[in-house]
Amino acid sequence: MAAAGSVSLKPDPASIRKLGILAGAGALPREVAEACLAQGTEVFVVDLEGAASEWAGAFAHQRVSLGQVGHVLDLLREQGCDAVTMAGGLVRPSLKKTRFDFKGLTLLPKLVLLFGKGDDELLSGVADLFAKNGFPVIGPENFIPDSLARSGSIAGAVPDLNEIAYGCAILDALSPFDIGQAAVVSGARCLAVEAAEGTAAMLVRVADMRAQGRIEKAAGGLLVKLPKREQDSRVDRPAIGPDTVRAAAKAGLTGIAVQAGGVIVLESGRTERIASETGLSLYGFER
Amino acid sequence: MAAAGSVSLKPDPASIRKLGILAGAGALPREVAEACLAQGTEVFVVDLEGAASEWAGAFAHQRVSLGQVGHVLDLLREQGCDAVTMAGGLVRPSLKKTRFDFKGLTLLPKLVLLFGKGDDELLSGVADLFAKNGFPVIGPENFIPDSLARSGSIAGAVPDLNEIAYGCAILDALSPFDIGQAAVVSGARCLAVEAAEGTAAMLVRVADMRAQGRIEKAAGGLLVKLPKREQDSRVDRPAIGPDTVRAAAKAGLTGIAVQAGGVIVLESGRTERIASETGLSLYGFER
Repeated sequence: MAAAGSVSLKPDPASIRKLGILAGAGALPREVAEACLAQGTEVFVVDLEGAASEWAGAFAHQRVSLGQVGHVLDLLREQGCDAVTMAGGLVRPSLKKTRFDFKGLTLLPKLVLLFGKGDDELLSGVADLFAKNGFPVIGPENFIPDSLARSGSIAGAVPDLNEIAYGCAILDALSPFDIGQAAVVSGARCLAVEAAEGTAAMLVRVADMRAQGRIEKAAGGLLVKLPKREQDSRVDRPAIGPDTVRAAAKAGLTGIAVQAGGVIVLESGRTERIASETGLSLYGFER
Repeated sequence: MAAAGSVSLKPDPASIRKLGILAGAGALPREVAEACLAQGTEVFVVDLEGAASEWAGAFAHQRVSLGQVGHVLDLLREQGCDAVTMAGGLVRPSLKKTRFDFKGLTLLPKLVLLFGKGDDELLSGVADLFAKNGFPVIGPENFIPDSLARSGSIAGAVPDLNEIAYGCAILDALSPFDIGQAAVVSGARCLAVEAAEGTAAMLVRVADMRAQGRIEKAAGGLLVKLPKREQDSRVDRPAIGPDTVRAAAKAGLTGIAVQAGGVIVLESGRTERIASETGLSLYGFER
C-alpha cells in the first residue's frame, strides 16, 4: 500500500534474485518454483520433511527436518537467497518428535509458546523468525501471475449470493478464534465448518453425510472460502485447486465461492476446466 | 419460571398421564420410557422409521414413517396421550423420499420452508405443529430424574477453565447460525467445530487427525458442549453418554466439559464410571 516513490517494507517480488521456497505438500510450491524460473528468478527449494521430494530434484534443493532452524538459515545464506516464501501444506509437527538443532534450541521457548496457538499465529511466528534473521517472507501468490481468484463468474452459473453472504457471516464469526477459512452452507443451513482438519477432510465429511442421508440430495451446497480477517498475508493464504473442485463435486456441492483477490487458485486453467466438466460453479466474490 | 400458584403454559411433567414418545435413535427415548413407567406415567412409543425397533416391543408402540403426520396425530389421540416428547437422534429426512399422508400434505408448504433451515428451526417447527394439534411438547430430560449435568467435577480432575471459556466463546459465536453445540479445543487452539455431522463424527475426526500427526499427542484436548443460546428447550437438547466418553478417550482428549443444567447425561452412572476408567475429566460448568 506504499505510495509511489515511498519506501515499502515488503520487498518487491520482481527485485528478488534468488528465492528460498520452504516447501510443504501440494502443488503450490512447485508452481512457485516453475513461475520463478520462467521469470528469471533463481530458486532454492527447502524440502520440509520430504514433502517436496517428488519434484524438488528438478531444482536446487535440500531436504531438511523441521527442527533444523539454524541449518535452514545457513543454507539460505550459502545459497544467497534474498527472501523466502512458505508454500504448501504442512502436517503440524509434534514438538516431542521434532529434533531441534542449536539455533532451534535457542528459539525453543518462543516456539513452545507458538505451538500452543492456532496455525495462523504459529506460521506468523515462524515468518517473523525468518524475517528477523534477514530473510523477508513473501506470500507465494506474488510469484505466480494471476494466481489470485478473479472477481465474478470463473466457471458455471453465479451461485446464490445469499448463500455466499451466510457463509461469510459464519467465517467472520469464527475469525477471532484463528479458524474459519472455509465452510459449507446450503440455504440458511450450515453443513460443515473447517477447523484443524483442512478443506479436503471437510469435503469428504460432507460427501459422507450425503451418503448417509443426513443431507438431502436436492440440498446442493456451496463451499465458501476466504482469508481470515486478521490473516497474515505472508503465510497460509487459502487456496483451491483441481483437487478441491473434484472433492466438492464428489460431496454433491453445486459451487465454490472464494474471495476475489484473497484466495489462490492453483493450476487455474485445469481448475476452471474441471469445474466446467463437473458442472460446478466457481465464483469470486468482492467484500 | 411461573411463580408459585400462577398458571404455567408448560404442563407439569408430573401431571402427564400418558406420554407419546417420538423416538429416534440412541439410548435417550428408551431411558425416558423406562423412567416414565417407574414413575407411574404410561407411555406410547412412536417408533420413527424403525429407529426404536430394538427396544420398543417392551412398550405400547407403533412404527411410523416420517411423512405420516396425520397418522401420528391420530395414534396419539387414540392412545389418549396428554403430551409428547421428542427424543433420540434422527437422520435428517430427505424431503424427496418422504411419503406424506394427507395431513402431512396440508402442512407441506410450511415443512418445505423448514427443511431449508437448520436443525433447530426444523425441530422447533415440528414441535409447534404437535402443540397446535393439542399435544404440548416437553423435553425428555423432564421425565428422567437428575438427567441434566450437575455443577462441578463429575469425574476426574477439574479441566483448565480457560479452555472451557475458549470453547464457550467459539460456540457462542456460532449460535446465531444454528450450529455450534460442541467444539474441541486444546489450549487456545480450536481443533474441531460441530456442524451437521454431530458430536460422534466430530470426535472420530479428532482421532483421525491425531493418528495422522495433525494434532500432537501431548496436546490433549477438551470437548465443550452446551445448548445453543437460542435453543428451543423442548427439542434437541445436547446430550452426552457412555459412547461420547469412549469416543473422546479414543480421540486422545483429556476431558469433557458440559454446561451444568443444560446438557443431558445419558446413563449417568455408566457414563461417570467409564470416564473414571478411561481417566477422562467430566465437568459441569456454570454460565
